This record gives sequence, structure tokens and C-alpha cells, in this order.
Amino acid sequence: MTVKSDIEIAQEAELQPIVSIAGKLGLGEDDIDHYGKYKAKVDYNLLKKYRDKPDGKLILVTAINPTPAGEGKTTTTIGLGDALTRLGKKTMIALREPSLGPVFGIKGGAAGGGYAQVVPMEDINLHFTGDIHAVGAANNLLAAMLDNHIYQGNELNIDTRRITWRRCLDMNDRQLRNIVNGLGGRTNGVPREDGFDITVASEIMAIFCLAGDLMDLKQRLSRVIVAYTRDGKPVTAGDLKAQGALAALLKEALKPNLVQTLEHTPAFIHGGPFANIAHGCNSVVATKLALKLADYVVTEAGFGADLGAEKFIDIKCRMAGLNPRAVVIVASVRALKHHGGTPKAELGKENIENLKKGIPNLLKHIENITQKFGLPAVVAINRFPTDTERELEIIEQECRRAGANVALSEVWAKGGKGGENLARQVLKLTQQENSFRFAYDVRTGIVEKIETIAREIYGAEGVDFTSTALKEINMIEELGYREVPVCMAKTQYSLSDDPTKLGRPENFRITVRNVRISAGAGFVVALTGDIMTMPGLPKRPAAEMIDVDESGRISGLF
Amino acid sequence: MTVKSDIEIAQEAELQPIVSIAGKLGLGEDDIDHYGKYKAKVDYNLLKKYRDKPDGKLILVTAINPTPAGEGKTTTTIGLGDALTRLGKKTMIALREPSLGPVFGIKGGAAGGGYAQVVPMEDINLHFTGDIHAVGAANNLLAAMLDNHIYQGNELNIDTRRITWRRCLDMNDRQLRNIVNGLGGRTNGVPREDGFDITVASEIMAIFCLAGDLMDLKQRLSRVIVAYTRDGKPVTAGDLKAQGALAALLKEALKPNLVQTLEHTPAFIHGGPFANIAHGCNSVVATKLALKLADYVVTEAGFGADLGAEKFIDIKCRMAGLNPRAVVIVASVRALKHHGGTPKAELGKENIENLKKGIPNLLKHIENITQKFGLPAVVAINRFPTDTERELEIIEQECRRAGANVALSEVWAKGGKGGENLARQVLKLTQQENSFRFAYDVRTGIVEKIETIAREIYGAEGVDFTSTALKEINMIEELGYREVPVCMAKTQYSLSDDPTKLGRPENFRITVRNVRISAGAGFVVALTGDIMTMPGLPKRPAAEMIDVDESGRISGLF
Repeated sequence: MTVKSDIEIAQEAELQPIVSIAGKLGLGEDDIDHYGKYKAKVDYNLLKKYRDKPDGKLILVTAINPTPAGEGKTTTTIGLGDALTRLGKKTMIALREPSLGPVFGIKGGAAGGGYAQVVPMEDINLHFTGDIHAVGAANNLLAAMLDNHIYQGNELNIDTRRITWRRCLDMNDRQLRNIVNGLGGRTNGVPREDGFDITVASEIMAIFCLAGDLMDLKQRLSRVIVAYTRDGKPVTAGDLKAQGALAALLKEALKPNLVQTLEHTPAFIHGGPFANIAHGCNSVVATKLALKLADYVVTEAGFGADLGAEKFIDIKCRMAGLNPRAVVIVASVRALKHHGGTPKAELGKENIENLKKGIPNLLKHIENITQKFGLPAVVAINRFPTDTERELEIIEQECRRAGANVALSEVWAKGGKGGENLARQVLKLTQQENSFRFAYDVRTGIVEKIETIAREIYGAEGVDFTSTALKEINMIEELGYREVPVCMAKTQYSLSDDPTKLGRPENFRITVRNVRISAGAGFVVALTGDIMTMPGLPKRPAAEMIDVDESGRISGLF
Repeated sequence: MTVKSDIEIAQEAELQPIVSIAGKLGLGEDDIDHYGKYKAKVDYNLLKKYRDKPDGKLILVTAINPTPAGEGKTTTTIGLGDALTRLGKKTMIALREPSLGPVFGIKGGAAGGGYAQVVPMEDINLHFTGDIHAVGAANNLLAAMLDNHIYQGNELNIDTRRITWRRCLDMNDRQLRNIVNGLGGRTNGVPREDGFDITVASEIMAIFCLAGDLMDLKQRLSRVIVAYTRDGKPVTAGDLKAQGALAALLKEALKPNLVQTLEHTPAFIHGGPFANIAHGCNSVVATKLALKLADYVVTEAGFGADLGAEKFIDIKCRMAGLNPRAVVIVASVRALKHHGGTPKAELGKENIENLKKGIPNLLKHIENITQKFGLPAVVAINRFPTDTERELEIIEQECRRAGANVALSEVWAKGGKGGENLARQVLKLTQQENSFRFAYDVRTGIVEKIETIAREIYGAEGVDFTSTALKEINMIEELGYREVPVCMAKTQYSLSDDPTKLGRPENFRITVRNVRISAGAGFVVALTGDIMTMPGLPKRPAAEMIDVDESGRISGLF
């Protein structure tokens, strides 16, 4: 049996015109802007029109700590959406948009897989409707205005050694991580150290995804801290009079992008902030609008539940006033075996012992969702072709023993049909009363909030703060940013801050090395290690395999 | 009387749905991809469908050497298109797309002015359909693949001191002109000197605009020289296996963008290469397709006729097999007075003497078009509110005395109606037989071609080549790039290579300081001075005035 590649399945699909997809949501031609035949931007002013309409039910898809084995969170999200549609429910999916950089690196695209994909997958992976380019342009206009201000006389007395704003590109380009610019003599700027992040790591992306509307976007942009003066005062984008131009650059991008799944379920794909230094979920505008347009909205958060779900709840839901009704925790046999110690090359072989050793990682996430956040949860076992029946049974048994709901998901191979069992369980959960709550009280201090997350969510014994971190926290609190949520920048591979500690680590402490303020986004970032904000390309970049033929058909994208 | 700003006029306009504009050209829904309600991309495969259809008549709009006073070339191009439409001719306009960088700098937008504009002007000036971002992504993917190759072991033996490929951003950012990157230790690249150009200065943009179709684009991309080995051999994008991914990134962008004028004349706005280190006109695909869709196509070339028209003819027309039928040379009273010595502050006052002194600049361009290129020409005097009747008469007299056609153009104030006289003269010229020819025989050597352009077009007495330039020419010819057109990179402000020599300079020589090969674009660039490929922002950037209100209406864009 030859297995079809994702792009082959996607290219064979019969897509419906996007106006028909919009029609399913009650939207007409006047509500959308077409971007080709199968993509559209939807007017966010509909949020005002539907202000009094009750919201649909929000379902979060999260996962165990990610492994090189693959868990299939996006695939599960899409398949669950299709399954709910099959069960007759008016459903929308809300996802992040893929960054261009990783498409050419090692990761490939990010539009689901197998028979659970959003399409047109090539467009979604390559430029899409240009949102990320717009975020990059805004980021770099702010950088250019900042350096120009210094070059033109530095009226604001900016300390060029304390510039916190970096440039960005939507590219995996390690060469740009650390640079010196402004070289070449007095007409070519002022020499200083600088660097580029990948665009999705820009604070502009986080702001874009947390803004409630265009005016909120502009206000957040004006609060962005780009540098400090020689007297130690923050310099903001507003001080540089940049917020109007930045908002103008982002105005069209702020409209959520509508596409469809292979089974024609409507999906918003909008915004894509990093899940370490930012909060890692699609835009508030898209989620809120989806909740007005559909009865069930399936959305996803980045990385594992310790980072993704925690931030989804403590940052996004808190800021936007969202109330999730059920959580799906994706796990796979392969990934759990990896957590139990199986090396990547042997993941295709049955290994009950390692599987059992890996399951506590899953159990901790179940505990977090149900006990700490008070939400009903179901484990989705994302089936891979190499899984044995025995292995699948073991996970099911262990989950049930822990009192958790569990369902086998076969959406990769079967599309929505393979997710009906999961969908039925999810529907049941959304009917339940819940005791939804945040992990911490936002009015406590930064140190206390970080300690609460580490103890309650990660299972750490405590937190060690470096003196640098404590100094920064002090400064940030003095600047008036004490009562904001904390955005943890931690490895995604472990519940701890050590990527090699798989499974459910115990007796560990978290070290917070530094703390930064993202004043526009409205959160404090706690850095527990070296967080990579500009990826590199691998020895054989995926780009080498990508091609396009005379008819415009793209190949080699995965 | 309060004069309305361009953006006010544009925002008051009643636009027709883009599908109606496409309908005027005989195009249906299947031929276009909508980008919102008033923009569309047109399928370039129509070029194949219409292969045997006779071409319309191509009209080039060029100008005297530009001055700070403004000549109004784009405004005249648009107004002439509207005037031809008013006279019942099936007309299209083909223009370059504006770069984002200058919009935030000093120049503002580039979508015409007054009542001769293309709309929606905010969209056209801000991101438009994303083409320039796509060019930037392709440029920077190639850079990332190049540096990654070196980082991963440098199998191709690339000499890191001889990397010719630079990165780019669509931003006015002098801080990035000269940088050192790859800093920060061994996991963060290999330290080397580098720099950023503005995206429209990238060779990718020139290639994009000269490619006949997607496969030609890919072949040109594979030929791009990015560096030399330690043995002095060129390293191409093809050697890095980058051309497929680059072409995939550009595939949608290659479709020409359809918009409309204020008077609903269809316009392609597509591609925008620099007019110094590149050839400065819109894409071949757009021009060729426009010639299939309309009976008259009005297009524009960058800068003055010495650079813009020469390259339009010797590079674009030569490569694409285009035959222009008439040329419009735009001049203004203010600009000619500036050429005659009037400082900017006094351009509003009548000054017959300086006007007369400035006119020889115009006469030289008329001579070039009619005598050197063998094309019928008409001077369009672009009327400004401060022009006196006496001044306008003088230009007319002097043109007639030199045997040149001349017409007053009032399209800025009156739209197409103000260009009818010009349009009638243009129509007459397009009926004439002409003796169209290139300025030089492409089969001669590089030195000879440069000397021919300098003597014949600029009126120079000769050319001095630096030893560096001669060495480069030698190397380029040995690499097999002898019989390609030459792209002159010269100041736009003077017929000479000295920007202070206004009017019609005489007894001067041109100095060629360096020569570069743009192997993908297929031309050799001759540099006569320091050519700025990354602009900077002024003391008060236009960005500070740009804003967007709650309804999404943009202000401060000009």
C-alpha cells in the first residue's frame, strides 16, 4: 500500500467556493473579502453586529509534551471539527497560521495531515493572505523609526545599549540572530548590537492575536516598549509616533481568514504567535467571531498543555473573557513510548513497558486540566499505522483507571468519520457544568504568579530566580506592570525546564533566568532557559525539495 | 479654495466591483482571483490562450530628468489612459507597484495624484496583493540557504569574502545598509560582512519583471549568481537547489494585479524594480497581457528618459519583443525652471528666463526618443496651479520650434477630460509608421555598449572606466555574459553622472566605477557612482502622520 502524501491528498480534494463556506455561517458576499477562490477575509465589524448573539461552545485541543514522534494536535483539531460537522453540529475550527520559515526548514507545513487537513494547503503554508508579512512590516517599520530617531539627533535620549526592540523576518535564518548594524560611517546609521527574530516571535504578533479590535490594537501598539532612556525610562512606540502607521499596516491583516477542511467545515486560520515567548494561539478576533458564527468552535493551543493550555487559559481566555467548555488532550502511542524512553528509531515497534512509563506525562496533563483549571477533558489517542491493539488498549485502561475520558481518534486515516467517537464524548463534556478557573490570581506579584504556575502546573518543588531576573521583576513592577499575566518561556519537551526530563519528572525546581515585559501584549515573559527566537535551516532544507511545474502545481511541500 | 488631498479624492470615489472592470476586458470570474472587492490577480495562462490575438498599441510615458519640483509622470500616465477611454478606445494602463518603504519616508505613495489616480490607493500603497513581500521572502530564503550551506560545511567551497547576494526588506532603513552578521559563537552562523537592500532593489524583482512565464522565471532564478568559490567560479541559486522553492514563493505573485482608475479604466499594477541598478518598469507579463486585452496600453518607465526610456527599450522591449508605437515625454513648468536654476522655494513664481534655460533638458530627451530610438513623441506639459499662461506658451513655442509635438495636460485637476488633447495627439502618433530601433547592438562588447549609451543618449564625450570596472568587465565577459544588455546605474537628476549638472550639460565624461552581473535578470549593471539601494527615513517620517480610525479609514497617506 502506498500512502499518499499530505499535499497529494490536498491537491486531489474538491474544494467548495469560499462563498459557499461563508454561506454555511450565514455570511454573504458583503461580509467577506475574497482572496482567490478558496480563501476570504471576514469583516471583524461583524463582532459588533452580533454583540448580543449568544456564543457557541469553545473546545480546546491541547496535548502531552511534544516529542519528535509527533502527536498530531492540529490533525486532531481539524478531524474533530469535521466529526462534529458529521454529527450535524454547526462547527468552526480556529487555528494559527503557519510561519513561512519552518516550511523551508525541517518542520514543513502546518495545515493538518492525512484526511484531516485545511485547504488550500499550499496557499496556507506559503504567504496565505499576507498577515505574517504585515506583522513583519510593522515590526520593522518600528525598528526603522527607532534607529532613525537616534540617527536624527536622539531627542528622546535613548540609550543605544538598552534597545529591546529587534528586527524580524519570516525565515529560518540563524545568520541574523546576532548582528552589528549601522556600520559604514556617519551617513549609514549608528553602530550597535542588534538581531533578528522570526516574525512570529515578534511582540507585534502577540499583540495582533490579543487585540479585541482595531482601536485596541492601536492602543496596545502604542504601549510597546522599544528601549530605555539614559535615565532608565521606557521609550514606547507611542513616543515615536509609530502606532498609527503600524495599525494601518495591520488593518487588513486583522480580519480573520476563512478557509475549509477537506470535508468543507469552515475554519479560521488567523495569527500565529510563538508558544514560548508568546502565548501560542490564534487571534482573539478569530476565536470570538467563530463563537458568534458557529455553535461549536474547536481551537488549538501551541506545544503541550503545560505551556499551551495554561497560556490559552491564563492569558487569552482571561484577556478576552472566553469560557472553554471542554478540553481534548492529544496523545499518541509513539509519543508516550518516547516519554517512556524509546529512542526515535524504535518507535515503530511495540513496547508496552516504555509505553506504561510514558503515560504519567499524559496523566499529569489530565490532572492539570480537570483539577487545576476545572474543565472536563477527554484524551484523544491519535492513531498511527504502527500502533498495536495492545498498546492502544493500555492507554485506554490507564486513562480509565485515572478516571479520565478517552477516545481513539482515526482522523488522519479516515477524516471526520474517524473522529466521531471523540466528537460524541466532547459533545457530552460541553453539556456538563464545570468549575473553570485560572491557575493564578493576576493581582498577585510576578514572583508569586511564576511560583504558582511552576508548582501547580509543572509539578515543580519551587522556583529559583537569578539575581538578574529579580532585578528585572523589580523594575517591571515599578513600571506598573505588576498585575499582568505571566507568559512562561520554557522548553516544550518536558514539564520541567530541562528538555531531557521526559515523562512526569518529580523533585525538580525551575530556574527563571530573566524576565521581560511585553507591554503591548500585556504580559510579562519569564525565561527559564535559552529560548530560540530565530530558528536555523537543517543540513538538507525542505526548500531543496520544493518545486513548481508549468501549470503552477507545487510539489515537495509537506 | 481648499484643494483636496489625493487620499480624500480617492476615498470619495465610487469604485466599480473589480469583476466589472475585468468584464470590460472580456474576462470572466474564472480568469481572475479576487483580492477583496476592488483588486484581482489575472491568470497569466491567458497569454497562451491569446497567443494568436494581435497586440494592442503600446504607449510609453517618460519624462525629463526628475527634480524636487515634481513632473507628474504617473499622474499623466493614468490621466492619458482615462482620456483614451473617454475617446472610446479600449485602453489599459500598466504601472509599477509602489514599494512600502518610501510610503513611510518622504516620497509618500505612488498611485498618481489629484483626479488621475488608481484606486484603492491605500491598498495599492500598503502591501497591495503581497507581491513585494513575496519577492522579499524569495530573496531572503536564498540568502538563508546560502549562509546555511556555508554553516553546514561549505561543500561548494564558497569564499565568504566574495558573497554578492544581499538580504532585503521593503523598508527605508539605513541602519541595515552595512552589517556584520553570524555573530554569537559557532551555533549562530559564520561571521561575515553583509547588508540589506530595499526589496525592490533585489535582483529577484528584476527577474520577476522580465520573466516571460513561470518556467522562464524558474530558469532565471537558477542562474542568479550569489557568490564565488575560492577558485573564482560563480555559485548560483541553482547550485544551492533553491530555484524551485523560490519559484513556488513567487507563483501567485507573478499574476498581474488588476485595479481601476478613478474613471474606471482597467490598470495592471505589477512589479516594481529600481530604475538605477535595475530596469525600472512593470512586469513583462503585465504589459504583454495588457496588449492582448486592450487596443491601447499606456505604460511608464522610471526616472527620466535617459535612464527609464532607454532601459524600457534596450532591456525590456528587447527581451520581451515589444514594439512601442508612441512616447509621451512629461515636463512641467516648475521642473523646467528648476533645470534652469530656480531654487525649490521660488518655483511658484513666474521666471521666463530660467524656464528657457531649462528647456534644453526636455529637447535632448525629445531628440533621443525621435532620433535615437526612432519613435514618434509628444511632450505633455503637466499643468500645476502655479503655472502662468506665459510660461505654458513658452514651452509650447520652444517645442514647436524644435519640431516637437506638444500638448497641455490637465489631468491632475480634471481627470481624463483634462487629457483629451494629449490623447488625440497620441492616437495620431500611434497610426504613424516609425523606425523603432535600439540604442546599441547587444552583440558588441560591454565597454562599447556603455560608450554608445553615454555618447548617444546622455550626450557625453566619452566614458572613463576605473581599473576595477575593467577587471570586472573582463571577468563577466569570460563568464559568458558579453552579449547581454547593459543596465546603467546613474543619477536620475542629470543627463550626466553628476546630479548637480541640470539642464542639458555638455562637454562631460561619464565615469564607470564598477560593473556587476545580474545573471538571472540577464543584464550587466554599470555603476557610475554611489547608488543608494537602501533609502533612509527623513527627520520627520511620513509614518508619523499616518493613522487609521475605528472604521478602518486611513489618513495621512499621500
